[in-house]
Amino acid sequence: MPTLADIGEDKLIRKLMRGVKLDRDVIAGAGDDCAVVRSTKNEHTLLKTDALVQDVHFTLETPPKLIGRKAIARVVSDFAAMGGTPRHAMITLVAPPSMDVEFLTEIYRGMRNLAKQYGINIVGGETSRGLVLMLSISMTGTVPSKRWLSRSEGKAGDILLVTGRLGGSIKGRHLKFEPRLEQGRWLSENAHPHAIMDISDGLAKDLPRLALASGTHYEINVAAVPCNRGCTFDQAWGDGEDYELLLAVNPRIVKSLLPKWREAFPKLPLTVIGRLVPPGQGCPPYAVNSGWDHFALSADA
Amino acid sequence: MPTLADIGEDKLIRKLMRGVKLDRDVIAGAGDDCAVVRSTKNEHTLLKTDALVQDVHFTLETPPKLIGRKAIARVVSDFAAMGGTPRHAMITLVAPPSMDVEFLTEIYRGMRNLAKQYGINIVGGETSRGLVLMLSISMTGTVPSKRWLSRSEGKAGDILLVTGRLGGSIKGRHLKFEPRLEQGRWLSENAHPHAIMDISDGLAKDLPRLALASGTHYEINVAAVPCNRGCTFDQAWGDGEDYELLLAVNPRIVKSLLPKWREAFPKLPLTVIGRLVPPGQGCPPYAVNSGWDHFALSADA
Repeated sequence: MPTLADIGEDKLIRKLMRGVKLDRDVIAGAGDDCAVVRSTKNEHTLLKTDALVQDVHFTLETPPKLIGRKAIARVVSDFAAMGGTPRHAMITLVAPPSMDVEFLTEIYRGMRNLAKQYGINIVGGETSRGLVLMLSISMTGTVPSKRWLSRSEGKAGDILLVTGRLGGSIKGRHLKFEPRLEQGRWLSENAHPHAIMDISDGLAKDLPRLALASGTHYEINVAAVPCNRGCTFDQAWGDGEDYELLLAVNPRIVKSLLPKWREAFPKLPLTVIGRLVPPGQGCPPYAVNSGWDHFALSADA
Repeated sequence: MPTLADIGEDKLIRKLMRGVKLDRDVIAGAGDDCAVVRSTKNEHTLLKTDALVQDVHFTLETPPKLIGRKAIARVVSDFAAMGGTPRHAMITLVAPPSMDVEFLTEIYRGMRNLAKQYGINIVGGETSRGLVLMLSISMTGTVPSKRWLSRSEGKAGDILLVTGRLGGSIKGRHLKFEPRLEQGRWLSENAHPHAIMDISDGLAKDLPRLALASGTHYEINVAAVPCNRGCTFDQAWGDGEDYELLLAVNPRIVKSLLPKWREAFPKLPLTVIGRLVPPGQGCPPYAVNSGWDHFALSADA
């Protein structure tokens, strides 16, 4: 019988979601950074859930306040990729009974601080006993109905760009990154990206996902990929947990977009790294063996 | 340093939620069955999250379809206790890489089937590696803004009632119960309960919670508590996982309510089990040592 390690994360999700039928008020379901549900005339509701697991996403040596910070920041990053605004959060905590209460209190302090910074209300949660510490965050928010962004409307010819620099996040940035919320909204207003997503599992994994969702292939200019100091292209390509934005935009707007961006965000680069191409050209969006797969890396299998 | 086992679940939640500030659009936050957020003029949004953990809520011997069924049913039960309607669900799955994919597929089949029965859309989710299997479900829904129910508006003199029969759910009912969704909505229209909640951790734990939230004490008529066949009062009191509704209603309406209920739900009893009384009388709503506490029962501490 095949195990999770055999089939990997993306195949698992496709398999589990097979046969899920959605009502007409669901505009986007599983497969994008957030689900999108029709709400009022001018606004859609965004929904997202995410989990942090001890010894996978953090260890008990990680400063607890940063664990909490990361738990919230990761989800905010998904709202950034939709051009949306997070509003309400719920927290599920699974922990062993032997766990030090002060450690948990510090985790929650980290969550509360970042939630406050982004105007997010922590409205509820759930606790349960478990073998190891696990945090699951679910969040709801809004996006103007005319401006929500997906990862699936990229077109052959679109230019690929990334915000910031990639690679080496394990040295600490994975705990301290600033989600690109303001940038996501700015891009939705100023660049109208055909496709956009946040880079959580690494460009190696997430760029093919964007291309696959858009029904295109892609080309990448290896020399152009902006690497963090001390990082090689391989690290920028495969490390993951960058939480930068990857987007595909109409080639005609790139020239005017870049100076506008520099004016709005002088300290954060926005870099052209490649383009989407028709199926048959460039790289096919599958059979990529780097980037992070939650199940394929199976030390504990 | 105190551990979770030392302070227990309710104290932990109060401690973690200290300092959480909520915007004015949040009508009810942590502490009720669902959070309540202002949405449109006529409707509020309900938000709920819940987790099922291997070897706590189920084992790998449990039929996987029933694990999935229970994961959804537990959350639906919380919407029942608000007089609301669940609409959209997100699923977080944590599993070891060695896990059989077919086992997971069956869990999702159980979830999909129950979701379909209650008109719930599964709109997204998240997967991660972990030591044991864990499911976290978050759900959003709606309630008419004039008719949402809480557990905190009970008044001294209110009559306490429960739906169905209690105790012995571990024999199988904890996997197969029907959430009282229709009954919750019916009660919100016909009984206008001052306080209502679902009995998930056992009457021993949940009745004091309702009284505490309402600022009252309570009296219970032990002989009147409806026990499942083969169960003692102690089991009905302490077992938990009944997923029946516990409610406090104005004493003046009880006489007319009971026949109306029998007509609407001829197969499901609605039973008077006691009343709320002023502080100083009856039982104080704390220092209760039965019922289920996720952390105090610490075999693995």
